[in-house]
Amino acid sequence: MSTVPLIEYEQASAEVRAVYDEIRASRKTDFINNFWKALAHNPDQLRRTWDQIRAVMAPGALDPMTKELIYIAVSVANGCEYCTHSHTAAARAKGMTEAQYAELLAVIGLAHQTNGLVTTLQVEVDDAFKA
Amino acid sequence: MSTVPLIEYEQASAEVRAVYDEIRASRKTDFINNFWKALAHNPDQLRRTWDQIRAVMAPGALDPMTKELIYIAVSVANGCEYCTHSHTAAARAKGMTEAQYAELLAVIGLAHQTNGLVTTLQVEVDDAFKA
Amino acid sequence: MSTVPLIEYEQASAEVRAVYDEIRASRKTDFINNFWKALAHNPDQLRRTWDQIRAVMAPGALDPMTKELIYIAVSVANGCEYCTHSHTAAARAKGMTEAQYAELLAVIGLAHQTNGLVTTLQVEVDDAFKA
Amino acid sequence: MSTVPLIEYEQASAEVRAVYDEIRASRKTDFINNFWKALAHNPDQLRRTWDQIRAVMAPGALDPMTKELIYIAVSVANGCEYCTHSHTAAARAKGMTEAQYAELLAVIGLAHQTNGLVTTLQVEVDDAFKA
Amino acid sequence: MSTVPLIEYEQASAEVRAVYDEIRASRKTDFINNFWKALAHNPDQLRRTWDQIRAVMAPGALDPMTKELIYIAVSVANGCEYCTHSHTAAARAKGMTEAQYAELLAVIGLAHQTNGLVTTLQVEVDDAFKA
Amino acid sequence: MSTVPLIEYEQASAEVRAVYDEIRASRKTDFINNFWKALAHNPDQLRRTWDQIRAVMAPGALDPMTKELIYIAVSVANGCEYCTHSHTAAARAKGMTEAQYAELLAVIGLAHQTNGLVTTLQVEVDDAFKA
Repeated sequence: MSTVPLIEYEQASAEVRAVYDEIRASRKTDFINNFWKALAHNPDQLRRTWDQIRAVMAPGALDPMTKELIYIAVSVANGCEYCTHSHTAAARAKGMTEAQYAELLAVIGLAHQTNGLVTTLQVEVDDAFKA
Repeated sequence: MSTVPLIEYEQASAEVRAVYDEIRASRKTDFINNFWKALAHNPDQLRRTWDQIRAVMAPGALDPMTKELIYIAVSVANGCEYCTHSHTAAARAKGMTEAQYAELLAVIGLAHQTNGLVTTLQVEVDDAFKA
Repeated sequence: MSTVPLIEYEQASAEVRAVYDEIRASRKTDFINNFWKALAHNPDQLRRTWDQIRAVMAPGALDPMTKELIYIAVSVANGCEYCTHSHTAAARAKGMTEAQYAELLAVIGLAHQTNGLVTTLQVEVDDAFKA
Repeated sequence: MSTVPLIEYEQASAEVRAVYDEIRASRKTDFINNFWKALAHNPDQLRRTWDQIRAVMAPGALDPMTKELIYIAVSVANGCEYCTHSHTAAARAKGMTEAQYAELLAVIGLAHQTNGLVTTLQVEVDDAFKA
Repeated sequence: MSTVPLIEYEQASAEVRAVYDEIRASRKTDFINNFWKALAHNPDQLRRTWDQIRAVMAPGALDPMTKELIYIAVSVANGCEYCTHSHTAAARAKGMTEAQYAELLAVIGLAHQTNGLVTTLQVEVDDAFKA
Repeated sequence: MSTVPLIEYEQASAEVRAVYDEIRASRKTDFINNFWKALAHNPDQLRRTWDQIRAVMAPGALDPMTKELIYIAVSVANGCEYCTHSHTAAARAKGMTEAQYAELLAVIGLAHQTNGLVTTLQVEVDDAFKA
């Protein structure tokens, strides 16, 4: 259970409905996921977060699917169950194949491992990497 | 300073030299970075890690540069300074542009933020994400 | 399910009951939350933890509600679901308003984001901060 | 060394200078710390981050010093050296006394400890905390 | 729910069955836990992980039970619920007593606490530790 | 540089000197490492932490060297450089051999990897582990 009540469209203020409407239009579905319904408790945060996500996750120098892979990697490292599920679903919706997912998994596992090895050994940064 | 002495090529056992030779051949440079020199203290771990990195980071369903972006994302979330520097250098060597780096930065920042928001609010996973 | 059985008051040793009695007296309620019932499996840890919490969370240079906000911030960053729920409840019991909670949420989200940005960029500490 | 060159005021674009000017005016000092100089490499991120910090850290239902304490707590848990130093300096600049700092330290230490205990024991959230 | 379907023995490919057979033989039980069934979605990762676990967790300079204690400590710090449960069960199966578990808990709690204190205070590494 | 001045024996209050004297007697050396000198800024925290370390790290159901291995594992996962160095030194002082260190490294690396795999896949805890 979340620490605040989830706010459904019907109960929402005009300010919150405006964001919900933009999410629905942008995603071409009426479905609003729980993250937004919880965030709606704080309308400023809702607006700021939605504007930022829309700007950052848009196609650019990196394609939207690659951005979702990066998002999954961060969410896993931070131990965020909700984020891992939601961005895995988003990556699939944006075209991630099972072969790509298998490689994502392998890179995430490997990176965690070598992070642990490096930190245990306290390896110093090579000068070559600072150039 | 690392917790173990770094092992240079000249001091290395045949087993360690074999891995160093493979790294040099694979990367087309004589440069061996400190991670390997520290890991060489444990030759089994050196061999296992090199074999795994070679297998996992090879071109596949995801291209090598994308894999480095994912690696950076994990390393940042784990707070590994060495790994962040070395994989940022690797991503650049594999063609990451500054525009791509700027977007990587933006996604990493955003993902950390929403991870924090979701965990504070303890948002429950939508059934739709479990399908 | 916890990794150890929860110990109820009725089953508890005299040593454990003494701590439970202090918790009840201090909080003016018979309710003992699961953390203590799990910790009771290790009576020394139970006693040490309760004594420390009582000393550290008491009113002092910082008021008890502010201490709970700090506690929530740490718990979120460590991904501890139980701790996030229990200290959010405690903060509310100590007077946290919904407006304060909204600002806490915003600060936690922002801090996670800038932590991620700084670590990605490997920004060096300014001399001015070390003075 | 940061992964991007630091951008000084003299080299900065008009867009970046505008943010630097706002930071200087807001803080009543010419000093621009390294975080902004690194972020300036990505002017959109610089603008977005500054606008968010200004909005979130302003006085509100929580006072600015309390917000810095929460910021320190998050930064410590994420292992961000730069952030810990810069927000400790900021908290002092906003009036944090050494007695308050000592209590902040004690709460952070305690919270980390009980987070570790709870996660080891996998304690289940009490129904009472979900109400 | 996991992000991939769990693969039961009956549905598994020959490659996956070979690993399952080795797990069963090694552990002297038909029980295959969910980790392997999820990993089986990626047969290369399944094989690589099983081979590594078998090599690393075997008796050596450290006994298998001690290795499980270390595994629990890492899993707790990473906030991995599954891993904490599975390695606590494994440690018990390998002989961990309740007295040993109580001390493990105390060390994990203490280490988290002092990690938090050190990072808050940004203590510099003594030269003596680098020798 | 730490966020507080380090307090040397000569400058210390009687309360702080008493703890320093106990550390020296217990460790049979005049050397006081920086952690204590920073903590001395907060004499209550110094006393509480020393008493807890002395109690928890004493020989018991687990031997002192094993406790240091667990301490290293937690410190690495939390990304604490100081803690990793100081407890690696302590483990060696308590008899950790290089062969044991090599195995510790391998277990830490493996555990980080499987933590990452499990969290990516969101594997559900088997009922068998909850019994």
